[in-house]
Amino acid sequence: MTPARFSRIAVIGAGSWGTTFAKILADTAAASAEPGQPTEVRIWGRRTAVVEDITTRHRNDAYLPGIALPTTLTASTDLPGVLHGADLVVLAVPAQSLRAQLPRIRELLAPDAVVVSLMKGLELHTNARMSEVITAGLGLPAERVVVVSGPNLAMEIARESPTASVVACADEAVAARVAAACSPSYFRPYTNTDVVGVEFGGIVKNVIALAVGICEGRQMGDNAKASVITRGLAETTRLALALGGRVETMAGLAGLGDLVATCSSPLSRNHTAGRLLATGLSAEQVTATMRQTAEGVKSARPVLDLGRSLGVRMPITENVVAVLDGEISVDELAPRLLDRDLKSEGEQ
Amino acid sequence: MTPARFSRIAVIGAGSWGTTFAKILADTAAASAEPGQPTEVRIWGRRTAVVEDITTRHRNDAYLPGIALPTTLTASTDLPGVLHGADLVVLAVPAQSLRAQLPRIRELLAPDAVVVSLMKGLELHTNARMSEVITAGLGLPAERVVVVSGPNLAMEIARESPTASVVACADEAVAARVAAACSPSYFRPYTNTDVVGVEFGGIVKNVIALAVGICEGRQMGDNAKASVITRGLAETTRLALALGGRVETMAGLAGLGDLVATCSSPLSRNHTAGRLLATGLSAEQVTATMRQTAEGVKSARPVLDLGRSLGVRMPITENVVAVLDGEISVDELAPRLLDRDLKSEGEQ
Repeated sequence: MTPARFSRIAVIGAGSWGTTFAKILADTAAASAEPGQPTEVRIWGRRTAVVEDITTRHRNDAYLPGIALPTTLTASTDLPGVLHGADLVVLAVPAQSLRAQLPRIRELLAPDAVVVSLMKGLELHTNARMSEVITAGLGLPAERVVVVSGPNLAMEIARESPTASVVACADEAVAARVAAACSPSYFRPYTNTDVVGVEFGGIVKNVIALAVGICEGRQMGDNAKASVITRGLAETTRLALALGGRVETMAGLAGLGDLVATCSSPLSRNHTAGRLLATGLSAEQVTATMRQTAEGVKSARPVLDLGRSLGVRMPITENVVAVLDGEISVDELAPRLLDRDLKSEGEQ
Repeated sequence: MTPARFSRIAVIGAGSWGTTFAKILADTAAASAEPGQPTEVRIWGRRTAVVEDITTRHRNDAYLPGIALPTTLTASTDLPGVLHGADLVVLAVPAQSLRAQLPRIRELLAPDAVVVSLMKGLELHTNARMSEVITAGLGLPAERVVVVSGPNLAMEIARESPTASVVACADEAVAARVAAACSPSYFRPYTNTDVVGVEFGGIVKNVIALAVGICEGRQMGDNAKASVITRGLAETTRLALALGGRVETMAGLAGLGDLVATCSSPLSRNHTAGRLLATGLSAEQVTATMRQTAEGVKSARPVLDLGRSLGVRMPITENVVAVLDGEISVDELAPRLLDRDLKSEGEQ
């Protein structure tokens, strides 16, 4: 059975991923449009220059230079106008500012709206996942909140390079409905009901990408990099399992896939941040140099705390935190990433 | 308890991995030498120029240009001399020529020798793993045959870049004894008893690396590459499980780790072969251009046949075989690597 289509879609956030996902939705709507039943896709953005660029020039040169956006896509700084009547609301704002924006959205949200999170990160101090922040902040049941995550470097998707992704929701039918809304020829969504696993894949990979970036900056080679990815996924999986996630999810596109894409691509911020840390810069200096946040720099400590509270050993995360806190140098980190007594591979 | 040391080690094969592993063994022996109990490491090679280079100049410029080998390492074309009294015999010859060499080795093998396989590949026509060819050809029990595999690009190890690996044997104590013999500061062996999983990780990754190389050659981007790696490991795992391997092994250094290293490195032959196939060359033309064999080109068909005989779906392998056989073009391959109906991620 074909899932019921959304009639009006609001994307909150006009950054690179929000805009790219709006393009995915608009391209899908255009390809499957029935006469008299167009699906509208509207973006809310904070900056006037950006939203005008999207609506009038069909570009977002601030975040997606050179990309032609669908002409059906519009953007506005008027939140009530964008949310009015939207039965699908996609959230793509900075992870740490999400909670503060939710009360306003809650007032304006249509009663039956499905909400999608594109964000990756743990909230500082609460250690809450983004979907948890959303269900609490909007007063929604888990069955109405969907997470999209996978090996999804936004700029590649904006260029329509073929990409696969995971659409996760406690209610598989809702996941399938969202998947149907984001399936242009260049983007293949797979559904999953393991929201916890999908979100933790996207959170911890940023921390592991810092370690891999440091390896690269220290010219440790592809053997070492592959070992850190492997053991990084192992500790991510241990944490996700302790929290109720599934091992298959971690071996899938939102776990392994996202980790490998992030650790391979020069486009990844966390990977770049790791390479800068490898030059001996402090965490503050790296953030200042990049002029944007590498999410792993913020998530590393909460991830480690969460692991400790559950008795999960996370040696790579632990050593990344020690570097970020200035407790060990990158020279000291490198050998620790591989150093253990000779032992059986399965032992922790 | 410290495992009993080997007193005399023979490495059969003076290519890049054989020579590098001999260096690992000789460096370990030098670091742990007790007075009066030196461990000798000797290499057998087919070509006089190569063995003379190793023994007199401590170099193997044909296979490891620029690398200084341990001065304790010697090499010879005299097989009986190299094997004489060796209680550890390491085999590093081309996979398809292994069986033919075993009768001669069997005659010369010390009665209690442990044999290590460094080879990755399935034997054509028999579909046998290298350790199976060895146990049959040398008349040894499985407990005397050890497999070493992992994210182990030889040239990086020869440069002493930090590397982890897996040493697998049905008898864990034997694996531990071999691990102790190959543990210089730059090489970390982990033991495992899942020989089947470790070997299949090393076999199928060459086929997946061809697919990833093709993606790269077609400039499909890091998202697509990460998806092919993820789904490639999934089909490798399905095959290994059907053959008695373990899921943890496939998620470890000899599965995921080796796959990621091979698919990341410009040093990998299979990866390079994929990029050449992407230009439209036939399998024969690629082999001729590279002047050496990409093992995945040979293994792809036996892997697919094995999967089919066990009812294991291997869509990436299947499509790689279709390209190698000239049945589909690389243009037709690319979309097939990601193309499936929208469905749950776990479904096959």
